[in-house]
Amino acid sequence: MAEVPGSVGTRAGLSLRLGQTSFSCASLLFMSLGIEFYSYTAFCYLVTIMGLVIPWSFTLAMVDAYSVYLRCPQRQPGILFIIFVGDWVLSMLTLAAACSTASVADLLVHSDTAYCPPTFCGRYQISAAMAFMSWLLSFACCLFNLWLLPSLR
Amino acid sequence: MAEVPGSVGTRAGLSLRLGQTSFSCASLLFMSLGIEFYSYTAFCYLVTIMGLVIPWSFTLAMVDAYSVYLRCPQRQPGILFIIFVGDWVLSMLTLAAACSTASVADLLVHSDTAYCPPTFCGRYQISAAMAFMSWLLSFACCLFNLWLLPSLR
Repeated sequence: MAEVPGSVGTRAGLSLRLGQTSFSCASLLFMSLGIEFYSYTAFCYLVTIMGLVIPWSFTLAMVDAYSVYLRCPQRQPGILFIIFVGDWVLSMLTLAAACSTASVADLLVHSDTAYCPPTFCGRYQISAAMAFMSWLLSFACCLFNLWLLPSLR
Repeated sequence: MAEVPGSVGTRAGLSLRLGQTSFSCASLLFMSLGIEFYSYTAFCYLVTIMGLVIPWSFTLAMVDAYSVYLRCPQRQPGILFIIFVGDWVLSMLTLAAACSTASVADLLVHSDTAYCPPTFCGRYQISAAMAFMSWLLSFACCLFNLWLLPSLR
């Protein structure tokens, strides 16, 4: 069986998952700490999705760390398929949340009426950028697992 | 070789492509005819993406119609892979555009300052909904072609 770097149970996969977890946490913290995010639908959506992504990626990071430590990657096709589908769904939701947040933040920054103080707007933008990074890593995980999937049949 | 309904060169595939083309055209027309879309980044992005999706889906609809008419579907793995990748990229771009448009339209509708007249806001929302429908059909095409792809090796 081919070893695909970045798939479940490899060192590259573990670092992808850890990056995903940290970017999601950063996005959530930049959005939710001390600023009024709940008056905008898009920002509430981002916080909800990040609340889903963080436990998912953290759990998979733990599984990867366990596999790397024991040097026996889990490669049941059923489990890998569930991980692939979960990654795909969550990566689409993350992309949607990141785009919504970025477009609303852009509108707030460039609107004529002073909607938000500059520090708040900057934090919205940083949060959107972190969500995009999280999407990128999640999408990479999804592609690597898709690549591995047919070889397990 | 298994016949997957909805993949390239089938009647279901043709109807999916036609639906995709018409929803994209509807989204573009609702957004661009007679209203000021170019003052919002998200709306400009939607118009750009729809300008990419319409020729792509229309060309593939023509290919499907030709295959259905001649009853000989094109099934080279290389071509199918290119179609799959194109569908995937365009479906992600469409999802991003639809989410951006929907969140900005929602912000404009619920903002305290009267940003847009109700008829304009309604058209922005309809345009976002059409873009979501277009994304759904594009995603379905992508999944059906992905299902067909391994059987061609």
